[in-house]
Amino acid sequence: MTATLTERGTHRVQRAHVAALHAELTRYGLVTWTSGNVSERVPGEDLFVIKGSGVSYDDLSWEGITVCDLDGGVVDGVRKPSSDTDAHAHVYREMPEVRGQVHTHSPYATAWAARGEEIPCVLTAMADEFGGPIPVGPFALIGDDSIGRGVVTTLRGSRSPAVLMRNHGVFTVGPSARAAVKAAVMTEDVARTVHLSRLLGDPLPIAQSDVDALYARYQNVYGQ
Amino acid sequence: MTATLTERGTHRVQRAHVAALHAELTRYGLVTWTSGNVSERVPGEDLFVIKGSGVSYDDLSWEGITVCDLDGGVVDGVRKPSSDTDAHAHVYREMPEVRGQVHTHSPYATAWAARGEEIPCVLTAMADEFGGPIPVGPFALIGDDSIGRGVVTTLRGSRSPAVLMRNHGVFTVGPSARAAVKAAVMTEDVARTVHLSRLLGDPLPIAQSDVDALYARYQNVYGQ
Amino acid sequence: MTATLTERGTHRVQRAHVAALHAELTRYGLVTWTSGNVSERVPGEDLFVIKGSGVSYDDLSWEGITVCDLDGGVVDGVRKPSSDTDAHAHVYREMPEVRGQVHTHSPYATAWAARGEEIPCVLTAMADEFGGPIPVGPFALIGDDSIGRGVVTTLRGSRSPAVLMRNHGVFTVGPSARAAVKAAVMTEDVARTVHLSRLLGDPLPIAQSDVDALYARYQNVYGQ
Amino acid sequence: MTATLTERGTHRVQRAHVAALHAELTRYGLVTWTSGNVSERVPGEDLFVIKGSGVSYDDLSWEGITVCDLDGGVVDGVRKPSSDTDAHAHVYREMPEVRGQVHTHSPYATAWAARGEEIPCVLTAMADEFGGPIPVGPFALIGDDSIGRGVVTTLRGSRSPAVLMRNHGVFTVGPSARAAVKAAVMTEDVARTVHLSRLLGDPLPIAQSDVDALYARYQNVYGQ
Repeated sequence: MTATLTERGTHRVQRAHVAALHAELTRYGLVTWTSGNVSERVPGEDLFVIKGSGVSYDDLSWEGITVCDLDGGVVDGVRKPSSDTDAHAHVYREMPEVRGQVHTHSPYATAWAARGEEIPCVLTAMADEFGGPIPVGPFALIGDDSIGRGVVTTLRGSRSPAVLMRNHGVFTVGPSARAAVKAAVMTEDVARTVHLSRLLGDPLPIAQSDVDALYARYQNVYGQ
Repeated sequence: MTATLTERGTHRVQRAHVAALHAELTRYGLVTWTSGNVSERVPGEDLFVIKGSGVSYDDLSWEGITVCDLDGGVVDGVRKPSSDTDAHAHVYREMPEVRGQVHTHSPYATAWAARGEEIPCVLTAMADEFGGPIPVGPFALIGDDSIGRGVVTTLRGSRSPAVLMRNHGVFTVGPSARAAVKAAVMTEDVARTVHLSRLLGDPLPIAQSDVDALYARYQNVYGQ
Repeated sequence: MTATLTERGTHRVQRAHVAALHAELTRYGLVTWTSGNVSERVPGEDLFVIKGSGVSYDDLSWEGITVCDLDGGVVDGVRKPSSDTDAHAHVYREMPEVRGQVHTHSPYATAWAARGEEIPCVLTAMADEFGGPIPVGPFALIGDDSIGRGVVTTLRGSRSPAVLMRNHGVFTVGPSARAAVKAAVMTEDVARTVHLSRLLGDPLPIAQSDVDALYARYQNVYGQ
Repeated sequence: MTATLTERGTHRVQRAHVAALHAELTRYGLVTWTSGNVSERVPGEDLFVIKGSGVSYDDLSWEGITVCDLDGGVVDGVRKPSSDTDAHAHVYREMPEVRGQVHTHSPYATAWAARGEEIPCVLTAMADEFGGPIPVGPFALIGDDSIGRGVVTTLRGSRSPAVLMRNHGVFTVGPSARAAVKAAVMTEDVARTVHLSRLLGDPLPIAQSDVDALYARYQNVYGQ
C-alpha cells in the first residue's frame, strides 16, 4: 500500500461495475456510513479492484475504486484502498478460485460473530446457498494478513462462501464480485431469520441428507 | 418444465400485471435478492403465469413472467419459470378456486416456520384476514410436487389463506394474485407483531366466538 | 353509513390536507396495505372527514377522503368511509375538544396491546408527549360504537393522547389531525424503544415529579 | 434565548451545511418527527449554529438553522433554537475542542439509556470509533444546563465521543458537525448489534490491549 496514488483510468469498466455493486450493500442495510467493501479480481492479471478507504456510498463511481496488486500495493487510483485490502489480497493469493469478495458489519450476522457462534442451518434457503452452517473465524487484528489467514482457514473447512469473523463481521467470497455480494446479502438474511426464530424457541433441525440434497440441487441449477 | 423457451408474447397484459404485483413484495421487505414469486391462473384456460427463475426485481417486466400449463410445463416465455413452479401447479390442479399464489421467505413468518410453530390468532386484524391461526405445513424437499401437496393438505384444514412450510417459508393463495399478495403482506405483518408481543409475555387470547364474528364480518365486507 | 355515495366536492382543501397526512403513516411504517386512517373535524360544522375504506395509500387524494356527519353517515364522497368510522364518530360526539384522530396497527404498539399491557413512562420524550404511561383500552368488536366507547373511557382516565386497544391497535386524538398523527408516530417510537429496553432488563423509572415537570414544560412550549 | 428573532442571513453557508447534515439522521432512522438536532461552532467566533425548534426535516434549509452565542442566546435567525440549545452551549463553553454536536433519541441506543446501562465494547468497529464502552450520563431535566453538565462530566471520563443520557437519548461530540453525526450514526449501529448479540447470549469480550491497539490505529488513520 505504498505506491503513489495516481489515476491512469485503467480497468474503468470493471471498476464502474464494482462501484455499482456496492448499491446492494446499502439497499439491504448491510453497511453504515463508509464501512464495508467489495473487491474483484481482474481477469487475466495478478490484480484486483477494491473500494477506496472512507469513500461515501453516495459518491461512489469508478474513481472511488482502486486497482491493487496481489500484495495489496496500489497500481492505479486516487483513493487509498480500503483498510481491509490486506485481507482481500491474502484470500486472492491463497484461493485462486475466489474472484470476488465482500466485507460488511451487517447487524444480525455481526451479532452472531460477537458471540463467536456459527449460524445453524435450519432453513432450506440456507442449505441451498451455504450447504450447512455459516462458520466462525478467529479474532484477528487489522493491519497485516491475520484477518485474511483466518478467512482462508475457516472457508477451507466449510462449504459456506461466508465466514463470521469473531467480534468483527462478515467476509464472503465467490466466483465473481456479484456472487460474493449475493452471499453477503443472503448471510444477513438468514442471520436475521434464524436469530428471530431462536428468540422464541429452538428451530427444528434439517436432516444432513436433506441439507446435502438441497445444496447439490441448488449448486447444479445456479452453478457456483 | 421441458418445453422450449420461446417468446410469443401471449397473455402480455396479465403478465405485466403479475410483474407489477411483485413490487409489493419488495416494498414490504418480504423478499431478498431474487427469491419469492407471484403466480396467477389465466382466466378460461388451463394455464398460469409465474415469475421466471432468478429474475431480478429491478428488471421485472412482462418478459420476466413465464406462461405454464397446469403440469408446470412452459407454454410461452424466455425465462425458465421459478423453481417453485411445480408447487404452484399442484395447488392450481387440486384447488380450482385458487386463482393466485405467492411464495416468500419473509423473515418473521419464516422464523415461526423454522420452529414449526403456528402463529396464534391474538390480533383482531388476524381474525379478519385469516380467521384463526396461520398453520404450519410439513417439511418438504423441492423438485417434485411434495411442497404443493403439503400446502394443499394444510390449507384444507384451515380458514387461513397462508401456510408456513416448515423450515422453509410462506405460501399464500387467493381468488386473484392481488389477494394472495395481500395475504403474504398480512402474514408477515401479523407474524412480526405476534413475535414482538410474545417476546415480553403472553398475548391475550381472543375468544373463538369473537374470532368467528370478526372473520364473518370481514369476509362479507371485503368479499374473499 | 347509509347515505348515497355521491361526490359534490365539498371541503376539498381539508380533504386534501388529511389525505396528505396519511403519508406520515407510511413513512414511519405504521400501516400495512390499506389499514389505518386519519380523520379531522370540519371547523364550524357537525362533520368530519375520514379515509375511505380499502383505499390504497398510493392513490390517496382528496377523493379518497369521505365527509361524514357525527353519526358516521356519509354526507359527501364516492368512497365508503373507513370501517372505523363509527369509532371516530363516537369520540367526536363525546369529546368536543378532540378535532383529529388516527388509528393504526403499528407493530410495536400493537404488540403491547396484544398483551393488554400499558407502556410505562421511562423516557423523557414520553413524559413530554404522553405525560405518563400509554394506557390500554378494552377488547371491543368492530361494527357499533363499542370501540369508540372504549377509547373515550380510557382517554378520560389519562393524560395520554393515545390508547392501546386490547388485541387490536392504536387510537390517538389531538386538537388537529396533524397533532393526532404526531401522537401516533410518537406512540410507535416509544413503544419500540421501551420494548427494546425491556428485552434486556428493567428500564429505570422516572420519578412522578419529573414526569410532571417534563409534561408541564412541553405542553407549555408546544401547546396542546 | 431572549434575543429577538430576526433574520440577517449571516453564516449562511455553514447553516446550509449543518441543515444538510440532518439528512443523515433521517437516512439512518435516528430521529422521529422533529426530534434530534445538529450544531456546529462558527470558526473564529464565540457562536454556534443549531437546528430550530420543531422544524420539520422535510423543510430544513439554512433558514431552519439559528445562530446562537455561547450562552445560548439568539444572534440571528427566525426560528427559536432547539430546546436542547442550553445543553449544546454548555458543552461548547466547557470543551473548546468540541466543534460539533448531535442529539438524538435513536431507538437502540436509547433502549440502553433507559436501563442506564453502558454499551460494552465487544465489536472491533466499536473499539475503532469509541475506544471502549459507550458510557451513561446522569438523569437530568431539560431547561437549564444540567444536561450539558452531565454530558461534559461523562465525556471527560471516557474516550467515547458519545454519551447515553439516562432515560433520555444520545449526545455526541466531534471536531466538526460531520464527525459528531458520524459518531451518532455509529452509536446506533453498535447499540443495535450489541443488543441483538446479547439477546441470545453473551458477546465475547475483546482484550483491553486489543481495544487499545484498534483505537490507536483508527484514530491515527482517520484523525480525530
